[in-house]
Amino acid sequence: MSGWLAIAGLGPGSDALVTPEVTAALNAATDVVGYIPYVRRVPERAGLTRHETDNREELERARHALEMALSGRRVVIVSSGDPGVFAMAAAVFEAVEAGPEAWRRLDIRVLPGITAMLAASARIGAPLGHDFCAINLSDNLKPWALIERRLRLAVEADFAIALYNPRSKSRPEGFGRALELLREACDPGRVLIFARAVSTPEEALRAVRLAEATPDMADMRTVVLIGSSATRIIPRDGAPFVYTPRAVPE
Amino acid sequence: MSGWLAIAGLGPGSDALVTPEVTAALNAATDVVGYIPYVRRVPERAGLTRHETDNREELERARHALEMALSGRRVVIVSSGDPGVFAMAAAVFEAVEAGPEAWRRLDIRVLPGITAMLAASARIGAPLGHDFCAINLSDNLKPWALIERRLRLAVEADFAIALYNPRSKSRPEGFGRALELLREACDPGRVLIFARAVSTPEEALRAVRLAEATPDMADMRTVVLIGSSATRIIPRDGAPFVYTPRAVPE
Repeated sequence: MSGWLAIAGLGPGSDALVTPEVTAALNAATDVVGYIPYVRRVPERAGLTRHETDNREELERARHALEMALSGRRVVIVSSGDPGVFAMAAAVFEAVEAGPEAWRRLDIRVLPGITAMLAASARIGAPLGHDFCAINLSDNLKPWALIERRLRLAVEADFAIALYNPRSKSRPEGFGRALELLREACDPGRVLIFARAVSTPEEALRAVRLAEATPDMADMRTVVLIGSSATRIIPRDGAPFVYTPRAVPE
Repeated sequence: MSGWLAIAGLGPGSDALVTPEVTAALNAATDVVGYIPYVRRVPERAGLTRHETDNREELERARHALEMALSGRRVVIVSSGDPGVFAMAAAVFEAVEAGPEAWRRLDIRVLPGITAMLAASARIGAPLGHDFCAINLSDNLKPWALIERRLRLAVEADFAIALYNPRSKSRPEGFGRALELLREACDPGRVLIFARAVSTPEEALRAVRLAEATPDMADMRTVVLIGSSATRIIPRDGAPFVYTPRAVPE
């Protein structure tokens, strides 16, 4: 009876971005739990059971993993990116708080990973090189009005902004509304980066000015980075560099 | 003449949090450049020159690295955490933009790492599990008034907030002023996490309520996480879990 639960971040896609800590946990696990494409990133081996679940069943998945850990299994819940950024870690702690006392005594660890916005930022330069924020654009779990309010305040604070989950089949409208809001609040020269499937074979990055941005540039595998008012493009042969300077003059 | 420059994140301290991509770059390098304690994390070996520089010389360090890469060396600039978050990547691109045309043709890559706020968040639960922002509290490169303004707007947006560089010997006052601002704007029960030297032998984490927080709880090796109004503490034997729920009710 020495079960444990690790909630592990697999990073954005490439195995070269998986930390040794996560690899060690996966090697020691008896069970891997998660959304289908993430579980399939973990190679099959004797002694390992892979539990594939649908994306919408986060709390149920968390409870299942906690029950297995309590029964003595060594369980890893896999997330893409970092499990603490719009991923499974919060769902697990929601389940723990609402669940039986025994779950609080479990060995539960969160193993950080490279989150999408930082992988995207690295790939194009340093657009998040100054103060920034991260907003989940999905309104599955919060009112759309709150998203708009946060976006307005983030622009007012002149943060660089990372938008996670900008668009999905069930939410086709939100990102277009976010672009309209940005057009009201920002200069048309504001820099936007559409970073899709970074570090995978399907990777695609493009930097555009706000005036040229359209809703179809984002899909469910895209993270959108919005520069601050100071973010700059360095033109060069091939893909440009984009960065936000460290200094704001007095 | 096939030099290159990688700006690599070593993560918060433990080698188990260094990505294989960064390890491979360090193994291929002829030169490692950076602030003394980060360079010393890279083991000495034949064929590798380690260049240790003072913390204040970021632009000069960037230019030196770019010159070496242009001369055919394989150069890694090391940062702690993620190089794109309040670290060396932005300084390099500032140097590139202001420098000779030849620097723009160099092979320059940013290799992401586990940044301090995500390592700290993972260690205590999931306090950044909902929308959040990151603010550098150092006023070396921006006016203090802008820091206060961003902090006020971040609280108004109800972001969880990560404060980098909360306090140093040369800036003893800022974090105390930030605490005063928080006391004006937030409930005294707001959760703060002081996370020092996460993943190193000197690691120390503590979660307190705003009413109990004092300036001396932070130093230059601390990242401070401020929960949103929804952030919760789960009491248990030993260190509590802290998390921010995924959902905001309508």
